[in-house]
Amino acid sequence: MSSTTGRLFRVTTFGESHGVGVGCIVDGCPPRLELDLAAIQADLDRRRPGQSRLVTQRQEADEVEILSGVAMPGPEDGADRPPVTLGTPIAMLVRNADQRPGAYGHLSDVYRPSHADYTYDAKYGVQAASGGGRASARETVGRVAAAALARQLLAQAADIEVLGWVSSVGDIEAVVDPESVTLASVEAGPTRCPDPDAARRIETGIDQARRAGDSLGGVVTCVARRVPAGLGDPVFDKLDATLATACMSLPAAKGFEVGSGFGGTAMTGSSHNDPFVPGAHGRPDVTANRSGGIQGGISNGAPVICRVAFKPTATIGSEQDTVNRGNEAVKLAAKGRHDPCVLPRAVPLVEAAMLLCLADAWLAQRAVDVL
Amino acid sequence: MSSTTGRLFRVTTFGESHGVGVGCIVDGCPPRLELDLAAIQADLDRRRPGQSRLVTQRQEADEVEILSGVAMPGPEDGADRPPVTLGTPIAMLVRNADQRPGAYGHLSDVYRPSHADYTYDAKYGVQAASGGGRASARETVGRVAAAALARQLLAQAADIEVLGWVSSVGDIEAVVDPESVTLASVEAGPTRCPDPDAARRIETGIDQARRAGDSLGGVVTCVARRVPAGLGDPVFDKLDATLATACMSLPAAKGFEVGSGFGGTAMTGSSHNDPFVPGAHGRPDVTANRSGGIQGGISNGAPVICRVAFKPTATIGSEQDTVNRGNEAVKLAAKGRHDPCVLPRAVPLVEAAMLLCLADAWLAQRAVDVL
Amino acid sequence: MSSTTGRLFRVTTFGESHGVGVGCIVDGCPPRLELDLAAIQADLDRRRPGQSRLVTQRQEADEVEILSGVAMPGPEDGADRPPVTLGTPIAMLVRNADQRPGAYGHLSDVYRPSHADYTYDAKYGVQAASGGGRASARETVGRVAAAALARQLLAQAADIEVLGWVSSVGDIEAVVDPESVTLASVEAGPTRCPDPDAARRIETGIDQARRAGDSLGGVVTCVARRVPAGLGDPVFDKLDATLATACMSLPAAKGFEVGSGFGGTAMTGSSHNDPFVPGAHGRPDVTANRSGGIQGGISNGAPVICRVAFKPTATIGSEQDTVNRGNEAVKLAAKGRHDPCVLPRAVPLVEAAMLLCLADAWLAQRAVDVL
Amino acid sequence: MSSTTGRLFRVTTFGESHGVGVGCIVDGCPPRLELDLAAIQADLDRRRPGQSRLVTQRQEADEVEILSGVAMPGPEDGADRPPVTLGTPIAMLVRNADQRPGAYGHLSDVYRPSHADYTYDAKYGVQAASGGGRASARETVGRVAAAALARQLLAQAADIEVLGWVSSVGDIEAVVDPESVTLASVEAGPTRCPDPDAARRIETGIDQARRAGDSLGGVVTCVARRVPAGLGDPVFDKLDATLATACMSLPAAKGFEVGSGFGGTAMTGSSHNDPFVPGAHGRPDVTANRSGGIQGGISNGAPVICRVAFKPTATIGSEQDTVNRGNEAVKLAAKGRHDPCVLPRAVPLVEAAMLLCLADAWLAQRAVDVL
Repeated sequence: MSSTTGRLFRVTTFGESHGVGVGCIVDGCPPRLELDLAAIQADLDRRRPGQSRLVTQRQEADEVEILSGVAMPGPEDGADRPPVTLGTPIAMLVRNADQRPGAYGHLSDVYRPSHADYTYDAKYGVQAASGGGRASARETVGRVAAAALARQLLAQAADIEVLGWVSSVGDIEAVVDPESVTLASVEAGPTRCPDPDAARRIETGIDQARRAGDSLGGVVTCVARRVPAGLGDPVFDKLDATLATACMSLPAAKGFEVGSGFGGTAMTGSSHNDPFVPGAHGRPDVTANRSGGIQGGISNGAPVICRVAFKPTATIGSEQDTVNRGNEAVKLAAKGRHDPCVLPRAVPLVEAAMLLCLADAWLAQRAVDVL
Repeated sequence: MSSTTGRLFRVTTFGESHGVGVGCIVDGCPPRLELDLAAIQADLDRRRPGQSRLVTQRQEADEVEILSGVAMPGPEDGADRPPVTLGTPIAMLVRNADQRPGAYGHLSDVYRPSHADYTYDAKYGVQAASGGGRASARETVGRVAAAALARQLLAQAADIEVLGWVSSVGDIEAVVDPESVTLASVEAGPTRCPDPDAARRIETGIDQARRAGDSLGGVVTCVARRVPAGLGDPVFDKLDATLATACMSLPAAKGFEVGSGFGGTAMTGSSHNDPFVPGAHGRPDVTANRSGGIQGGISNGAPVICRVAFKPTATIGSEQDTVNRGNEAVKLAAKGRHDPCVLPRAVPLVEAAMLLCLADAWLAQRAVDVL
Repeated sequence: MSSTTGRLFRVTTFGESHGVGVGCIVDGCPPRLELDLAAIQADLDRRRPGQSRLVTQRQEADEVEILSGVAMPGPEDGADRPPVTLGTPIAMLVRNADQRPGAYGHLSDVYRPSHADYTYDAKYGVQAASGGGRASARETVGRVAAAALARQLLAQAADIEVLGWVSSVGDIEAVVDPESVTLASVEAGPTRCPDPDAARRIETGIDQARRAGDSLGGVVTCVARRVPAGLGDPVFDKLDATLATACMSLPAAKGFEVGSGFGGTAMTGSSHNDPFVPGAHGRPDVTANRSGGIQGGISNGAPVICRVAFKPTATIGSEQDTVNRGNEAVKLAAKGRHDPCVLPRAVPLVEAAMLLCLADAWLAQRAVDVL
Repeated sequence: MSSTTGRLFRVTTFGESHGVGVGCIVDGCPPRLELDLAAIQADLDRRRPGQSRLVTQRQEADEVEILSGVAMPGPEDGADRPPVTLGTPIAMLVRNADQRPGAYGHLSDVYRPSHADYTYDAKYGVQAASGGGRASARETVGRVAAAALARQLLAQAADIEVLGWVSSVGDIEAVVDPESVTLASVEAGPTRCPDPDAARRIETGIDQARRAGDSLGGVVTCVARRVPAGLGDPVFDKLDATLATACMSLPAAKGFEVGSGFGGTAMTGSSHNDPFVPGAHGRPDVTANRSGGIQGGISNGAPVICRVAFKPTATIGSEQDTVNRGNEAVKLAAKGRHDPCVLPRAVPLVEAAMLLCLADAWLAQRAVDVL
C-alpha cells in the first residue's frame, strides 16, 4: 500500500525488476475510446532503456499485452474497426526479460548508497533479488502504459496535448519556449533536449560522466496545452498538488515546481502577478504565465507547466563506501556498465505523471459540472 | 471533491473565509491519546494573522471547539485527568469572526490577478462572497487543527518532532543548521527566521514592501527528527510524494524539494550519494543527507527535510490591470491594507503538512510490520 | 476509520450521543444546487425521536446549522433568491441537547446485552459516557442531513424519488404496492406503515411491547423511482452492493435484500427471470421486477427496491443477565423508559442510505458517459 | 470504477469471460508471509466449474500465475524454503481458455432476461463478446485468488478460520451446526451441503432442474471462527456492512444476513438479546449468538456468521421472451447445456468475501491499537 493513484481514472501498478513482469490495471477509462495500440507501444518504447548510447544498454523488449477491458476486432469485423475500450478495468502486462528467482536477497547483501536497498529492508525485512524492487525504474512501465491510454483519452475527448523535454543536465541549461516546442524537436536527438546547442553540450557531458564512472542529474520540463479552465479540485486534489505527488513518486525525483517555482520567490507581487486581459469566447486571457496555468489549484486555460528535478543516478561506476546487512563497513565494487544520466528516459515519465493527473481531473470535472 | 487526505490518519476539512466557520474531521486518530488542549490552541494561534506588524492585521480569535471524538474529564474526574481521544472521528470547529452572507458574488465581480477568483468561477459558476473560497488561507485552519493532533500523537507514540522556519524571503537567504535549530530560535522574532542577521534584513524588506504596496515570496524549510526508518509506501504513497502533495496544496505554494532538490541536479552521482557507515543498534547511518532522509520513498532514519517555495502574495496595495466577470478590462483599485509576506505564517502550514504525512505513514507502517 | 462513504458524493459523519454534537461534511455536492433549507430540516425532523407515543420520548430539537459550502442570500438579494451550493464541502452541525462530559465511562461499567458497549471497549479500550458512542442511533443525524442534500440533487437533476415505509413489525406483515405507495400514506400515522390495517395492528403490538418492557423488530422497504438505466459500477460498487453496505451500517440492521431477496431462492429460474418487452424511447421494459431494478449491479430502469431487517431494540425495560467491565456477572436493572420499536424511525434512515448511494452512482455515471 | 476493495488489504480485480484472462492485484499483503502455492491453487480449483455433474461442465484449467510481489526460492535456496511475500503488490493472472475476439457484440444482440446484457449496454454502450463481461462468474477468479492469500495471512497471524457451506437449495433446508461443521463434511459431496440428508435431496433437485431446463437458487452460510473481539470500524466500515457489500457484489446475490437476520425481526428484544456471562481471559462470553458475532459493527469474539441468498441461475435451458438491441420482441432460444444451480460453486465465493473483509479489518485494527 499503496500502488493505486487517481479517483476516476484509477491506476494500480505492480511488478519488480526481476519478477515475472510489470504492468497495471486502469479502472475508470471511459467506454468507447478507440485505441491506437501502436501508439501505446510507442509510448512504452520511449521509456525503454537502450535506445541510444547515452542511456543504459540493457535491452528490454517491453511488449505490452492487454489482458482485459478492450474489445479487439474479431474475424468478422472489417479491417478498419479499431479496438475499443469496454469501460471495464484494462489490465496490461509487460514481461521481464531478466527474471531471477531467489527469495532471500543473496545479491543484495550490500546496501548501495542512496538506493532503496536499506530502506526496503528496514520496512519489509525481506528483499527481492537485486533490482530495487518497487523503487526500480522498471516500476514505471505500468504508469507509462496507463498514461498512454490517458493520452488517447485526452486527445480524443478534449484535444489536450502533453509534451515534456530535458531542460537541464548538470549545469547545462537549455533555452526552450514552452509554447512552441514540438515533439519532433524533442525526439530529434538522444538527449530529448530540443535546444540543439544545449543538446550537444549535454551529449558531451553525459559521455564524459560515463567515462568517469560518474553520473549526472537534471531537470525535465513538461507542458500541457489546451487544458480547459476549471480542472483540479480544492484542496487536496489541487491540480498542482496532484501533479506534485505524481512527479515526486518517480524514481530519483527530488524537486517539483509549477510555473515560476522557486525562482518566483525572488520576485515581488507586482511583477509576479499574471495580468488578466479580455480574451476570446468571453473568457479572460493572461499576458504572463508565472502561475503555470494553475491558480488556486485550478487550471485557468493557460498552458500548464511544471518542472521536475532528478538527482544524479545513484548507480555509478566507481567504488563507494557503504555497509552490508550485518552493519559492517564494506566497499561497493566498481560497476562496469551504468546509466550515467536518466534524464532522457525521465521525459516520458513526467509526461505520464501529467497525463494521469489531467485525465483524472478532466473526468472529475464531468461530475462537477452537472447542473 | 476532494477535501480529504490521508489513508489512516484521515483528515477532511471544510469552510470558506466568510461562511460560518472552518474546521475539520480527523478520522483514525488512535484511541487513548492524552490531549493537551492548550497546545492545540497554541498551534492554531501560530497560524493566526495579526500576530505582529509583519503580517496581516486582521484579528481572528480562532478559538477551536472540539465537537466529538474526545472524552472530556467530567465533574467526578480528578483535576489531573486529561482529555483522551475515543478513537472516533474528532470534529473541530473554528467560527469565522467576519461572516458575510451574499450568495451572488457582489464583491467578486473583478477577477484579482493570480488569485483563484477566475478559476473558481470557471469551475463552479458561482462564487462565495470575496475571500477566496477554499483557496483562501483561512482554509488552512482545519489542517493546522488536525496537525496539532498529529503532533501530539507522533510525540507521544514515536518521539518524532517537526519544526519549520523561514529560510528565505525575496533574495535574502538565511543560514540555518537543520540538525540543531530550535523552536525557541524560530519563534524569537516575527519573521520566524532563526538566523538573526537574515531575520533583521527580512524584517526590513517586508516593511519596505508594505510601504511600496508590494509583496514578497520566500521559502520555508521543515525538518522532522527521529523519524524511524521504514515509513512511506511505494509507489504513490512514497513519503516524499505525499509530502509534496501536502505542501503543494498550501495556498501560494509553487515549489517543493526534498533533500538536495533542484540544487542537487548540478552535482555528480559520486558527490551526491550519501555514504552509509555502521551506526548504532545494528543500523547504518549516513554521513551526508542529500537524500533528505528519504530513499526510494521510504525514510532511512536521518532527519526528513523538505523546502517549500511560496510566491509573493497576490494581494498587493497598488493598482493592477485585470478583467471583470463580463470579460471587460478594468483596473483593480489599490488596496489599503495587505499582507506583504505570508512566509512567517506559512511556517506552521508546512509543519502541518509534514505532521499529517508522518502520522499517516507511521500508522500505515503498524499494518505492515505484523508478521 | 472509517466514517467516510461515497466516491463522488462523499459524506463524512462525526459525533457521539453525549458529546457536543453530531453532523457531517458532504464533499462533492455539485455547485449551483438551489437548496430548500426547510426541507433539509424536515428530513431531520422525520428522523427525530419523540414524534409520537410509539417511539422514544427523548426530545431532541435537532436544528441543523450549515457551516460552509452554501451561499446564503445576502441583504441585497431579493426574497426569492434561494441558498445555492458552492461546490465546496458542506459541513452541517446539530448540537446535542444532552451533553455529558465524563471521560472514563462511569455510566458504562456494565455491558448491555447486544449493545456495542463491550465491542467498543474491546476495540478502543476507552468509553465515552453512555449512549453507545458511534453505534448510537444519534450518529445517523449526519447521514440524514447529507441525504437531504442528495434528495434535492436527485430530484432537481434527475427527477429521482426515494420513499421508504415499514413493511413488517414482529410477525405483522403489511401489504403495500411499491409502485403506487405515497409519502402521504406513509406519514399518515405514527407507524409509517401505509397499510392501514397492518398499521393498526402494529400500533397495538408496539403498545403491548412497551407495557411488557419488551421490544419489537421489523422490516423497512424502500423504493427509488425513475432511476435511469446504467447506474452502479462493477464490481465492488455494484448498486446493490453499495446499498447493502449503506443499509447494513445502520444501527440494528441485521439483513438486506434487493428484489426477490431470500424469498426468491425458493423459485426456479424460469419463474424468477424478469422478461423483457419492448418499451418506450427504444428501451426495453420488464414485466416483472424480481431483480429489484438492478441486474449485474447496474440499474435497469425499473424501480429499485430493497428491504432491510432491523432486530428488536436491544434496550428493553426488563432485567437482564450480563457482565461488567471486571468480567463479573451482574444484573442489568430494569429501565423505566425505552423505545419499544425503532422501525418508524428507521424509515428515513433507509431512505438516507438509498439516497446517498444513488447520488454517488448518478454522479459517477457522469464521468463514464463522456465519449 | 470501481474494481478495488479494501483499505489495507486492497484488492483490484480485472478481466472478462472471453478476454485474455482474469486476475487481481493485492496491495497491502504484509511482507514475510510464507505462502503455500498449492493451497492457493486448491482454493481456485474449488471455485472452478466442471467439478461434478451438478455444476456447469465448462472446463477451465484456471492455473494461477503469480506475476509479482512474491520472492520465489532460487536455485541456491534449500528445498524447504517457501515462497515469501515481499510487501509489494501481488499480481495474479489466470488465462482464459476460451478467448474470443470480436469487438462489437455479435453474439449479444439479444438481451438475456435477468442477465446484465441490457444494463451493461445501457451503461457502456458497447459490449464485449457474450459472457457477461464483469458480471460474469468468471470475474470472481481474481477475488478467490486474493482471498487465498487472505486465508493464509489470517491463519498464520491470527489463527482465524473461514468456512462456508450450502444451507439451502430451493425449498430444501439443511440442518447444520455452525460451531462444529468441518471442511471435510462440506467437501464430502458435490453439493457442498454438509447435512447428508439434505445433500441427497439437493442433488436430486438439481438433477431434476437440469432435466427440466430450469435452475434453482439457494443460500450459502459462512462462519469465521476465532475472530478476536474488536475488528470492524464504525460507521461505514462496520464489519457486517463490509461483509454485506462483499457478498452482495457476488454474481446472483440477492440477499445478505448476519446473525439472526430477517428471521430475528419476528422475535422480541428479551428473547433476541445475547446474554453476556463471564468468560476466559477476563473477557465476557455470550450464551447465544443471534448477533452473529458482531455488535455495533465490531466483532465480539463469538463466531461471525452470515448468510447470502443466491437467485436461481438466470441462464436456463428453455425458451424465453425478451428483446434485442433494436428493442424488438424476440424469443431467446433454448440453451442446450446450462448450470442448473450455482450454489456449490458459490461457497468459495462467500468464503472469499469474508476472508477479504476480515484480512482488511484485522490489519486496520493494527493501526488502531497503538497506544
